[in-house]
Amino acid sequence: MPKIAQKAIDMPASPIRKLVPYAEKAKKAGKTVYHLNIGQPDIETPQVALDAIRNFDHKVIEYSHSAGFESYRTKLAETYRKGGLPVNTEDILITTGGSEALIFGFMTTCNPGDEIIIPEPFYANYNGFAVTAGLTVVPVTSSIETGFALPPVSEIEAKITSKTKAIVICNPGNPTGYLYSKEELEQLRDIVQKHDLFLFADEVYREFCYDGAQPFSVLNLEGIENNVIMIDSVSKRYSMCGARIGALVSKNKEVMTAALKFGQARLSPPTVDQVASEAALNTPQSYFDDVVSEYVQRRNIMVDGLNSIPGVFCPKPSGAFYCVAKFPVDNAEKFCQWLLEEFEYEGQTVMMAPANGFYSTPGAGLQEARIAYVLNQDSLKKAVVCLEKALEIYPGTIR
Amino acid sequence: MPKIAQKAIDMPASPIRKLVPYAEKAKKAGKTVYHLNIGQPDIETPQVALDAIRNFDHKVIEYSHSAGFESYRTKLAETYRKGGLPVNTEDILITTGGSEALIFGFMTTCNPGDEIIIPEPFYANYNGFAVTAGLTVVPVTSSIETGFALPPVSEIEAKITSKTKAIVICNPGNPTGYLYSKEELEQLRDIVQKHDLFLFADEVYREFCYDGAQPFSVLNLEGIENNVIMIDSVSKRYSMCGARIGALVSKNKEVMTAALKFGQARLSPPTVDQVASEAALNTPQSYFDDVVSEYVQRRNIMVDGLNSIPGVFCPKPSGAFYCVAKFPVDNAEKFCQWLLEEFEYEGQTVMMAPANGFYSTPGAGLQEARIAYVLNQDSLKKAVVCLEKALEIYPGTIR
Ligand SMILES: Cc1ncc(COP(=O)(O)O)c(C=O)c1O
Ligand SMILES: Cc1ncc(COP(=O)(O)O)c(C=O)c1O
Repeated sequence: MPKIAQKAIDMPASPIRKLVPYAEKAKKAGKTVYHLNIGQPDIETPQVALDAIRNFDHKVIEYSHSAGFESYRTKLAETYRKGGLPVNTEDILITTGGSEALIFGFMTTCNPGDEIIIPEPFYANYNGFAVTAGLTVVPVTSSIETGFALPPVSEIEAKITSKTKAIVICNPGNPTGYLYSKEELEQLRDIVQKHDLFLFADEVYREFCYDGAQPFSVLNLEGIENNVIMIDSVSKRYSMCGARIGALVSKNKEVMTAALKFGQARLSPPTVDQVASEAALNTPQSYFDDVVSEYVQRRNIMVDGLNSIPGVFCPKPSGAFYCVAKFPVDNAEKFCQWLLEEFEYEGQTVMMAPANGFYSTPGAGLQEARIAYVLNQDSLKKAVVCLEKALEIYPGTIR
Repeated sequence: MPKIAQKAIDMPASPIRKLVPYAEKAKKAGKTVYHLNIGQPDIETPQVALDAIRNFDHKVIEYSHSAGFESYRTKLAETYRKGGLPVNTEDILITTGGSEALIFGFMTTCNPGDEIIIPEPFYANYNGFAVTAGLTVVPVTSSIETGFALPPVSEIEAKITSKTKAIVICNPGNPTGYLYSKEELEQLRDIVQKHDLFLFADEVYREFCYDGAQPFSVLNLEGIENNVIMIDSVSKRYSMCGARIGALVSKNKEVMTAALKFGQARLSPPTVDQVASEAALNTPQSYFDDVVSEYVQRRNIMVDGLNSIPGVFCPKPSGAFYCVAKFPVDNAEKFCQWLLEEFEYEGQTVMMAPANGFYSTPGAGLQEARIAYVLNQDSLKKAVVCLEKALEIYPGTIR
């Protein structure tokens, strides 16, 4: 039997799926499991997008242009410009999800063996994309005490070597929900400029900003237009994760030309889903207002609820729909497993994502878990009660 | 400005797109251009698949399982078994097109620097996927004189080194239309077994076999179950190229487990398109009968037409919807460009794909072009007339 590749061995299994077998057992045992572990929102997809699918009236489902339909790119660029982002049609490559944009971005800019610096905790699949491209992830640890603000610039610069090719940020952040300030981004700009690095910004949660906070896009950082690559996606914005439509956006012509070659090899992003994504650009502002106000309430229920439990600490995030909480337990992964295997309160329990999977530094985040507040408010309230009751009786609770 | 990666430089631009600017100019000049250059069929997508899209009634377009919906995998496995292929649900990973299945397959089995042996001419995007995975393509040249039959086993074995990790075939072939016999596949089986290699078979054209010829799948080769990886796609079978649904099929559990990790990192294949692909499994046999009989007539018009032109030679393929013809010209690429730039017959001209882009050996296939007979019969007849008239006056015609 021939051996598989080293990359295939190195490739991390998804950390948020580790507990799935325990959740399935819990459900078989009749428990209600509140799924706070994954970023699959329950919010409805905008009607305009669903209608576009139902009204798809071509007789042949053909390939699109490898960069995506031109009509879609043009309209997307207009939408960006309305939002203050200086983007033209030719700065956009439509990809199969933000995921493919990240892979194309890494492949286009980094050689195998190169290093990419990422503030941790970070979206765990960056590890998988780094392995795919043969890159080494160099983490800079941000701290729950500061709400996961950007680590001091000196710490980031200390990690730069001759192999460093890019800095990767997620803004607003998954798993932290942290929204970088303009000042923090300008600090990054200075490093990027000084060391001539690429700056990847994963802005797929841009629409999810709370309490009046405004997201600042890396595309608006002056002086590093050729260094910046923005990653976008319709997955979260329009609650259409299954459409698999994303975008790689950059002013760097060399990057765009090269990324398109990767795009041509795989022919095209999905056609019907692009039609739906183009229609989604007509989503009325009221849709977003409703979604944001719903998430604010959910966040408040969840974060305030968590902070009212003795020994639990959870910074209140300004963006995305995740938070990372610190629990008074020996090991959050064991706690999460125990919640599914051993615990129930009135027939219910909670599934969370242990945060160690979002850190690259071994041993980091051991007391933390990520919570996606993607369920209705009633379920979130019940989930908080479950967690409170659980910590009262969990054998590993530190008092 | 930071430098892009070496891979991004090495990444080949799609050879079939090189002539696109000339075609656009020809169209702007008012010429009718018969597009024989790409594999985008004009055949209608089955009604059951289109209906499934129009009837999509979920309120949220959610991610599917990373391996694809279980219902789809199970029904696809049943369909394979009905066709005599021994496939179970767990042997299938649903991918974003056959393209992604090829990338995942290469990433999973081959280390950067490894060699893969491919009979040439071959589907040009194998080059792009090889660059993506850091692999070296080692061609074994098949010849137009034998209709692009498998080169002698001794020639293939002569190419095997300590770095050889896999043999990649396409059956029926793009660009050749050649259908490998059971005997040829058994010869490959013996080499694969002897040298413990992986055998990739791209069978995306399996339904397109003519004159009673039956395709023989690598999944039916006995004794190399753990070596075989079959690549499939709905793109051509159901004329739904834009759905971007494919599959990686293997009995090798280690391969399937590792490939799924790549699948998890990118989350899921498109949801609505999987629903359509599952519905497409109910396409009545009459659809395929009609399509095959249409392609047989098109092939006959094209191939017989080509062979009736003085100095042109085109073997008659038993599968797919391509043929490679040899033209009595100095350089087929120049000829193809001239057809678009300089030539017209009654306001019409022809676009073909120069075959050198399908060869990896420099200088091979210089007199050949690939023709996709994906247009209606009337257009094909006119295209043949154009080619005949063109060769009469082309300055580079060898007489
Ligand atoms: C931070 C971040 N980036 C990228 C993605 C990828 O999303 P998609 O490929 O669905 O666009 C996700 C999905 O959860 C995410 O959380
Ligand atoms: C031989 C072959 N393999 C694979 C593909 C990829 O097709 P898709 O990604 O649309 O499934 C094609 C498309 O033309 C092809 O001709």
